[in-house]
Amino acid sequence: MAKLYVVGIGPGRADLMTREALEALNEAEVIAGYRLYVELIRGQFPDKTYIETGMRGETERCRRAVEEAAAGRVTAVISSGDAGVYGMAGLVLELAENVPDAEVIVIPGITAALSGGAVLGAPLGHDFAVISLSDLLTPWETIENRLRAAAAGGFCLALYNPASRHRQDYLAKAAGILLEILPPETVCGYVRQIGRDGETSGLLTLGELPSFGADMLTTVFVGSRSTRVINGRMVTPRGYSV
Amino acid sequence: MAKLYVVGIGPGRADLMTREALEALNEAEVIAGYRLYVELIRGQFPDKTYIETGMRGETERCRRAVEEAAAGRVTAVISSGDAGVYGMAGLVLELAENVPDAEVIVIPGITAALSGGAVLGAPLGHDFAVISLSDLLTPWETIENRLRAAAAGGFCLALYNPASRHRQDYLAKAAGILLEILPPETVCGYVRQIGRDGETSGLLTLGELPSFGADMLTTVFVGSRSTRVINGRMVTPRGYSV
Repeated sequence: MAKLYVVGIGPGRADLMTREALEALNEAEVIAGYRLYVELIRGQFPDKTYIETGMRGETERCRRAVEEAAAGRVTAVISSGDAGVYGMAGLVLELAENVPDAEVIVIPGITAALSGGAVLGAPLGHDFAVISLSDLLTPWETIENRLRAAAAGGFCLALYNPASRHRQDYLAKAAGILLEILPPETVCGYVRQIGRDGETSGLLTLGELPSFGADMLTTVFVGSRSTRVINGRMVTPRGYSV
Repeated sequence: MAKLYVVGIGPGRADLMTREALEALNEAEVIAGYRLYVELIRGQFPDKTYIETGMRGETERCRRAVEEAAAGRVTAVISSGDAGVYGMAGLVLELAENVPDAEVIVIPGITAALSGGAVLGAPLGHDFAVISLSDLLTPWETIENRLRAAAAGGFCLALYNPASRHRQDYLAKAAGILLEILPPETVCGYVRQIGRDGETSGLLTLGELPSFGADMLTTVFVGSRSTRVINGRMVTPRGYSV
């Protein structure tokens, strides 16, 4: 049998992993991951065989992990955050499609919408949408359509991958689209390096978002019309009478 | 100082909690929660003072928790899943607004979109929206608008609270709205009693969803046009070349 875990390790801090995730990594002989995420866990699991690749090495890394599992070694592919939210679960399931007796076990983790939301308060306390601003794998027009649809629907938003070295103006473009529909005083927030050394966070308005300098380690939150600032925290009430 | 945790306990199984959540519950003298969720953790923390209320007792329960914290006892309010996703974090922050020196610490947890998604495969592997079908606190027209916006935007969907004793036809109504925009062969899935004894799950099509008997313990997933079934799992590919 080819036993293959896809494990969401959360933001990276050990106490933000579930015990289920720790146990899967304990059981695995081989652990595959993006270099930066492997560094987050290697100290806890020094005796594993690691498969590391850099950015854009996802398919190669997951293919090698599937091969290791097919050869009979229990293997875990790690994703930061949740395994299924822009993580490796889908890719591994695709690559394992024709492997006989493959057992793919997906283990959830704390994605940045949740860990970053907790830092800010409760920005996603009502219906919300999660959108990645990366157009590496998605046409920018699709991203624009989703931003418009989410704003029109009154969703709170968590924006992943708001910028990178090659996409410095994407958050500004996204904010411009949201400003077609939402008022500039809409409450927004950001968290950078969630759960890691040097974590920073703050609140700002949608009107200020175009000039905010996000990077690829930042998650951005955009409130709905009901989102408020309470004692410096970002809160979208669910609607209980208080 | 009034120290108040709002803790996401995940679906309820101990190994799906983070260590951070366990440590907060260990530290707390008083734990407040919905009766059913208190039962999920009482065995692990037998020596706490518990504040339990039933359905619709949220405001009373959180108010009492804020009072306990203000009286100097470290208090934890628990939510199933994540503390911020239809959880108690927002309500607690609202109620603690005028409590001097209140320190509200939100601890994230595995929400049903993630835990149920992992059971099914990777249904939320691309941009997604989370919508509650409960109209207890939200006008049904708002819910309808969000369903239409999310379908038009091509989001995958996680639907929370798809039914209750008093809202048996809400999932059928929601599916009818989605079918105005999405094809009936759209891949859907459900997970019931996630992470608990008697967990069940399965796949169906959007065309079959109106006659599916969901209850309040069920989470429903609706795919996008790119969602596929791979070896019985529900997968929304992110778009890597395979």
